[in-house]
Amino acid sequence: MSHWDRFQKYFVRYSNLGFSIDISRMAFEDDLFSKMAGRIESAYKAMTELEAGAIANPDEQRMVGHYWLRNARLAPNDALQQEISETLAATLKFAADIHAGTVTAANGKKFTRVLVVGIGGSALGPQLVANAITPANPPLSISFLDNTDPDGIDRVVAQIGDELATTITLVISKSGGTKETRNGMLEAEAAYKAAGLDFAKHAVAVTGAGSELDKHSTAQGWLARFPMWDWVGGRTSLMSAVGTLAAALQGVDVLQFLAGAAAMDVETRQRPASENAAMLLALMWHHAGKGQGLKDMVVLPYKDRLVLFSKYLQQLVMESLGKEHDLDGKVVNQGIAVYGNKGSTDQHAYVQQLRDGVNNFFVTFIEVGKARDTASIEVDPGFTTGDYLQGFLRGTRKALAEKGRESITLNISELNAFNLGMLIALFERAVSFYASLVNINAYHQPGVEAGKKAATDFLAQLAKVRAELTVTGRTADEVAAKLGIDPEDAYHMLNHLAANAQAKMVLTGDSPALDQFAAP
Amino acid sequence: MSHWDRFQKYFVRYSNLGFSIDISRMAFEDDLFSKMAGRIESAYKAMTELEAGAIANPDEQRMVGHYWLRNARLAPNDALQQEISETLAATLKFAADIHAGTVTAANGKKFTRVLVVGIGGSALGPQLVANAITPANPPLSISFLDNTDPDGIDRVVAQIGDELATTITLVISKSGGTKETRNGMLEAEAAYKAAGLDFAKHAVAVTGAGSELDKHSTAQGWLARFPMWDWVGGRTSLMSAVGTLAAALQGVDVLQFLAGAAAMDVETRQRPASENAAMLLALMWHHAGKGQGLKDMVVLPYKDRLVLFSKYLQQLVMESLGKEHDLDGKVVNQGIAVYGNKGSTDQHAYVQQLRDGVNNFFVTFIEVGKARDTASIEVDPGFTTGDYLQGFLRGTRKALAEKGRESITLNISELNAFNLGMLIALFERAVSFYASLVNINAYHQPGVEAGKKAATDFLAQLAKVRAELTVTGRTADEVAAKLGIDPEDAYHMLNHLAANAQAKMVLTGDSPALDQFAAP
Repeated sequence: MSHWDRFQKYFVRYSNLGFSIDISRMAFEDDLFSKMAGRIESAYKAMTELEAGAIANPDEQRMVGHYWLRNARLAPNDALQQEISETLAATLKFAADIHAGTVTAANGKKFTRVLVVGIGGSALGPQLVANAITPANPPLSISFLDNTDPDGIDRVVAQIGDELATTITLVISKSGGTKETRNGMLEAEAAYKAAGLDFAKHAVAVTGAGSELDKHSTAQGWLARFPMWDWVGGRTSLMSAVGTLAAALQGVDVLQFLAGAAAMDVETRQRPASENAAMLLALMWHHAGKGQGLKDMVVLPYKDRLVLFSKYLQQLVMESLGKEHDLDGKVVNQGIAVYGNKGSTDQHAYVQQLRDGVNNFFVTFIEVGKARDTASIEVDPGFTTGDYLQGFLRGTRKALAEKGRESITLNISELNAFNLGMLIALFERAVSFYASLVNINAYHQPGVEAGKKAATDFLAQLAKVRAELTVTGRTADEVAAKLGIDPEDAYHMLNHLAANAQAKMVLTGDSPALDQFAAP
Repeated sequence: MSHWDRFQKYFVRYSNLGFSIDISRMAFEDDLFSKMAGRIESAYKAMTELEAGAIANPDEQRMVGHYWLRNARLAPNDALQQEISETLAATLKFAADIHAGTVTAANGKKFTRVLVVGIGGSALGPQLVANAITPANPPLSISFLDNTDPDGIDRVVAQIGDELATTITLVISKSGGTKETRNGMLEAEAAYKAAGLDFAKHAVAVTGAGSELDKHSTAQGWLARFPMWDWVGGRTSLMSAVGTLAAALQGVDVLQFLAGAAAMDVETRQRPASENAAMLLALMWHHAGKGQGLKDMVVLPYKDRLVLFSKYLQQLVMESLGKEHDLDGKVVNQGIAVYGNKGSTDQHAYVQQLRDGVNNFFVTFIEVGKARDTASIEVDPGFTTGDYLQGFLRGTRKALAEKGRESITLNISELNAFNLGMLIALFERAVSFYASLVNINAYHQPGVEAGKKAATDFLAQLAKVRAELTVTGRTADEVAAKLGIDPEDAYHMLNHLAANAQAKMVLTGDSPALDQFAAP
């Protein structure tokens, strides 16, 4: 079959949405759909149940309701429907009040900046939205504290500078207990205090009812609080107040954003696999990686403003699909690695490897029809920068195909709030479908607990190690033996303390075991 | 062997540099060094010849001299030594003149901002430096045009706004012929013109002598021109004027940056493999991926300011190592995929997959000793945000090791210009060594030509397709037949034209072949 015939066979468009998906350059066999029919049917069934309010996250005994956020009528009961609608309305009203100057900073001036304190699902989504669909100079500019790095926090606070007086801080944590976010909040609070400002009068919480953060913000009399729900996972929370509040503050048309997601939901909820963009994505992932994640997903949007989309998908895909056990308890070590930035820029970074090197990936091109909103100069007679961008996308797709490197191409008409909503909804559903195809729970993250636990242990031991420091030098083995802890752990703790003026390395030995540390 | 014993065995530090590398959590066998001895010896030999000025890039018949940029005395002849030194001095003087106001914008005011126009090696390095080692509020703030995306260009220009009058633009292109950069330059020129400003009086070129850009900038009487040399590859050009000029303008201590790289070169040039950090990295990459790139390199610096380091390494590693043929002409499809952002942030994105999911990676942790320059608040009694950051790194390393996921840990004392220079030099040499271990040319990029050629063909055909549009509708097949081109190509061109007001889709068919396009 010619490329052109195959393209027509495996090109699906939703003309009403200005959207298309082209899987013709994925080298699957025509019988893929029949072979996968049973799993496809199960995936649809699981999705129908999920959207109807089933306990789709069995480990955590939770409903999975992010699809309701863009169409509250789908929520399984009136109370939920009302809460979703009222929260959205309250969020938009709060942003409008800020824009209008009805709600102001403590000094009576209009807020000019928003600082988001959050991590993971509470940062990646807002960061994507801030890059992708806000105006170049939004009504409120935005900064993020998305880590517990004190140096990074200092840098952001220094960049905000005097503008802190008119900065509103959103502290976003579903559980209200995420340490990085708690730490960021305390650092932000300290920065406001150091500037002689009342943090509570500049602070807003987005968190679950009854969480630590909820209680703290209420006790301190923060400006506002917006709810998060246990039936929304962090990585799919962008269309709750987690994402909509910062978006609205920056002048994003939130209703259009939600409408785009809802529209893609409609298209991909019921259609048969052969014309269902979300199922096609899931099937292509399955084909490429043989259902075992053997190929990395390289995401290449040819649009600067989508540069964070791959980072967003990295979380959505890897945290959802990277699982040890399947739903039957069998060890499967699933997952798909995701990376990418933007084209044509990345062509100058690693298309060399994609075309010539190890064939351990498939590319997802994202093509945006409309090149720009303003008139274009000609950079060559008859050609614009946008023509070049398009040429590079098509040229790269062809050059990769020539060498047997597979690719999917998604096309949207332009990059706006509606269409970003569409793309997010598309990938959310593709992830749900893929999880069904490989029989895993896409909605929990048991693997992150071990690292948190180990970190907590580290801190508990760190305090003890610090207390063991004396004026004379001690080795890691000596400290560890005294405390009954692992000497390698003790060694790293001693080094950390020494690097931060809480200990002194008084002797550098020939090996770490011989290094001696003392009180500072 | 206990973890602690293995740690001591495979922990190498350069105390004079405050640097260490820990490979104890890579699960290689002790006989790795003896098994690889022959290849290690060859790699050292190749490196010695390269640094002495051999034609280390046989395909392009070029010397490979980026190691000379931080120690001009190593360059193979006096003329080169002089040119390197004089260029560096001229670069620093130019930046000092800008800071002092000796060189000003056309309006006589001090420059306040720098706009870098470049892509790949001419953007990733300057972006890394801007994020990692510039002050929070540098003497000149910085923006980038690193793509031929008109919408992205519009956004950057809008963000600069009126400050364009005091913005100096650096156009960086070694060959002077890179289309994205040429387009960015023309767009920047148009933006200056639209603002009533004389571009030439705000423009500086960094390019090879005699290049198109060199001629253009000379003819237009730009502010200054700094040279690039054919013996410096784009991806290793950060320590030439490509990187040093923007760095100096932003107040970076460029001499310290170079000194750090030179110091790491000294440590890793001659030492035996067991204590050579660059060779250890190369050996670990070889061990992890069985010399075939079977494992992805996940780079996790626990320091916000290093968030772009993985993106920088993505280019350095993937473009250098992603090769179809080895030096004997055998098809090998080499490469190592690189991704990552920063810890602990990424723990909330994909450590779930790293610990539980597909084991197709190894992690490179980058630990920075000093947490911050300012005094810390306590976020818990006795604990700072920096303690948490350290705890998360150590906790994640342990949680991964428990599940048989391998990791390397690099440690630097603090993040400053000297230490970033060290890290870059370390990875540059590791890439050179690894290329020798697997017998490939790390210094060419033959695979990027096909995409460029296909893009050029696309543009040539695009003009013809546009000329074929008439007032009545035509299908892609009709246009393609008339022009003798591929109908799928014609279809994508027609769509691109339609999305940008240069064509009209007058009928949407049941399949792409039936769509009809007319003149706008």
